[in-house]
Amino acid sequence: MERTLSINVAERIGKEVMVSGWIHKIRKLGGINFIVLRDRGGLVQAIVEKTEDLDKLKELTTESVVSITGKVVKEDRAPGGAEIHVQNVEILSPVTEDIPIEINKKDLNVNLDTLLDFRPLTLRAFSQKAIFKVQAEILSAWRDFFKELDFTEINTPKIVGAGAETGGAEMFEVKYFKKKAYLAQSPQLYKEIMAGVFERVFETAFVYRAEPHSTSRHINEYMSLDIEMAFINSWTDLIDMHQDLIKYVIDRLKKNSKKEFDLLGAKIPDFVKIPVIKLREAQEILEKEYGEKCIGEPDLEPKHEKQLCEYSTKKWNSEFIFITHYPSKKRPFYTMDDPESPEETLSFDLLFRGLEVTTGSQRLHRYKDHMSKMKKRGMSTEGFEDYLNVFKYGMPPHGGFCQGLERLTARFLELDNVKEASLFPRDMNRLKP
Amino acid sequence: MERTLSINVAERIGKEVMVSGWIHKIRKLGGINFIVLRDRGGLVQAIVEKTEDLDKLKELTTESVVSITGKVVKEDRAPGGAEIHVQNVEILSPVTEDIPIEINKKDLNVNLDTLLDFRPLTLRAFSQKAIFKVQAEILSAWRDFFKELDFTEINTPKIVGAGAETGGAEMFEVKYFKKKAYLAQSPQLYKEIMAGVFERVFETAFVYRAEPHSTSRHINEYMSLDIEMAFINSWTDLIDMHQDLIKYVIDRLKKNSKKEFDLLGAKIPDFVKIPVIKLREAQEILEKEYGEKCIGEPDLEPKHEKQLCEYSTKKWNSEFIFITHYPSKKRPFYTMDDPESPEETLSFDLLFRGLEVTTGSQRLHRYKDHMSKMKKRGMSTEGFEDYLNVFKYGMPPHGGFCQGLERLTARFLELDNVKEASLFPRDMNRLKP
Repeated sequence: MERTLSINVAERIGKEVMVSGWIHKIRKLGGINFIVLRDRGGLVQAIVEKTEDLDKLKELTTESVVSITGKVVKEDRAPGGAEIHVQNVEILSPVTEDIPIEINKKDLNVNLDTLLDFRPLTLRAFSQKAIFKVQAEILSAWRDFFKELDFTEINTPKIVGAGAETGGAEMFEVKYFKKKAYLAQSPQLYKEIMAGVFERVFETAFVYRAEPHSTSRHINEYMSLDIEMAFINSWTDLIDMHQDLIKYVIDRLKKNSKKEFDLLGAKIPDFVKIPVIKLREAQEILEKEYGEKCIGEPDLEPKHEKQLCEYSTKKWNSEFIFITHYPSKKRPFYTMDDPESPEETLSFDLLFRGLEVTTGSQRLHRYKDHMSKMKKRGMSTEGFEDYLNVFKYGMPPHGGFCQGLERLTARFLELDNVKEASLFPRDMNRLKP
Repeated sequence: MERTLSINVAERIGKEVMVSGWIHKIRKLGGINFIVLRDRGGLVQAIVEKTEDLDKLKELTTESVVSITGKVVKEDRAPGGAEIHVQNVEILSPVTEDIPIEINKKDLNVNLDTLLDFRPLTLRAFSQKAIFKVQAEILSAWRDFFKELDFTEINTPKIVGAGAETGGAEMFEVKYFKKKAYLAQSPQLYKEIMAGVFERVFETAFVYRAEPHSTSRHINEYMSLDIEMAFINSWTDLIDMHQDLIKYVIDRLKKNSKKEFDLLGAKIPDFVKIPVIKLREAQEILEKEYGEKCIGEPDLEPKHEKQLCEYSTKKWNSEFIFITHYPSKKRPFYTMDDPESPEETLSFDLLFRGLEVTTGSQRLHRYKDHMSKMKKRGMSTEGFEDYLNVFKYGMPPHGGFCQGLERLTARFLELDNVKEASLFPRDMNRLKP
């Protein structure tokens, strides 16, 4: 018999069905034996009566995998409004030992380390599955948005010979046959090269940061959502497109992920036009509203990011806020300085619910501008030859941005730690599972 | 003025437009100066008459990036049936030195090393862009197919602590803070774990093979398209779904990529039901038809893969052919042996135009079966603990397969070398660009 998913059982009242899944719960209630079965659709309840079937189940614990055949009966008290009166139970994979973590409770009630240590099991809990269902939806929506705008998907190498944008210290070293190589910390140089080919490109791939610190905002391997776009008129084109992107993702989440947000008690924000302010203005707000003495600092502290989002929500009703014009000395060499204020750059970050989720900028596009900036910084061109050469061969004005998928997921779902939004996160101390 | 793409110019005859792009060619014909401009849409021709504009162009070579404003005039001899009579040329990025490779010819006429050494430039040629447009379409179609079947996209770690499925020799070593780690050679163990969570999962990501050989079929970093599916009734479910996948991808290519196939002189195959034969039968065909003494060999040689595709095309009109039941000793430990013939496995490869493009199988799903197989092979369970534990906690019958995106692209487009289907391929000697 063909398998019926739990969500479709109630449509087949009076008929015989076969359902397959995990034993989520076994309950005895007034002498009746209930199995609550879990499959990718949800839960379905089955009543076991035959001694033969009860004997089969005796030795088993939850998470055993079974196929149940039986008749569907209307039952308002059961999940979905129907239950199965069992005719046969087939055991596909018996579980005979105790499960180390009870994953059939609404609240897993474990600390972060336990959650991650037992990941293959804890991921089966509805709350954990919901996180990664939302993540898949964000990723899918993100790609669709750019495909509709004629962006071409690219896949650029993660094993690189050299060319750390921000100094080599933050790169993981790889033994590459007899050579030394590194794991890419971003597709930056490649995506710029590719903007010279397809004009508009995106990539969704892991990148690697050998940052030796453990915070709730960092993981050492993360999914970077990258775009680069040629023939922009101004860096503000990127901001405008980014506004549309956020609206698009929110619309898709409202359409497809409401169930998961409800389960996790998180709110999908309503889209309002996102305010755009300069870093300098942001610092004035921080001083005036929060007493933070930060005017003239080159960057925002984590605390400031939280305060600015709080302020933006209160003042503009937007949980997102763009901060622009970061100082030149704090931004990578390829960033275009503001011609009207060369100490500042045509750059921006997007903050969302207290955290930076995007960083972007207009880039330099003329070879001579690159040369003079590198010289001014005392940077060597070594390792950048292939990247720099492309600017000799005609590069249009361009810019782009990147987002961390795990951060984005974590902020949408209001999770405490970005690691909760990574299936198998990597940090200084965590190489497994 | 807003930019018009080259493909839309002919719709605006009599109007003024602004086009932006690269100078693909500069031609003088009977005293008239033509610029052929290239943008992401294609080519458009412009006639320059003003001395002022001609002076601007004098110093420039092809690949200079310009914006041209002018009036659109019907001209049947021009590409698209219209040309622009230039009113103004603005130079966005001048190119003043000779381009090392002429990319504006129909045939690049360079050898593979030159093609790859000058990748940032050679990728701008129409023939090269076409390859990666097709690749993006395959990838997009592939993901769509599985999303429609309720598969969930996952992203599993590429930095792994241990657990090489086929012995550690083929893994790249990573210096991970103070520990030793490796680059994942496939998401196999993770995708199985995730089949225990979402039942149906897919992943499209780079994987890494430290294979110290250089062939036209191998690259050391490649995009692996992976699926894993729980609650299969039989390994043949995977074959059936794979048939549908190939049909779906072919339909999408016919719909969206005809232009690129035409440009590259490649044929999109018509879908016919793909024949499925056992390795043993394949070897009998090879002996009978090609005089190859290979019966009983554990695997096919590259030559055999070509012969079998040739045979399949002739006999069944299919350029694809499934070969099944590879011997147990040649397949990884997690592969399910055929209960009716334990020396063979419930495994398959898909060959396409002479090359293996898919490998898949039903997997073991019971803990005790894993233990006895590992024991029989004399394998240690060290490094596999997290993977093996999941089988204690209830895993359904499952199986899956993986495809190499570059190989798939190369076979669809009939390219000689798989490296041509990688933007920036990595091999033993190639770490850049």
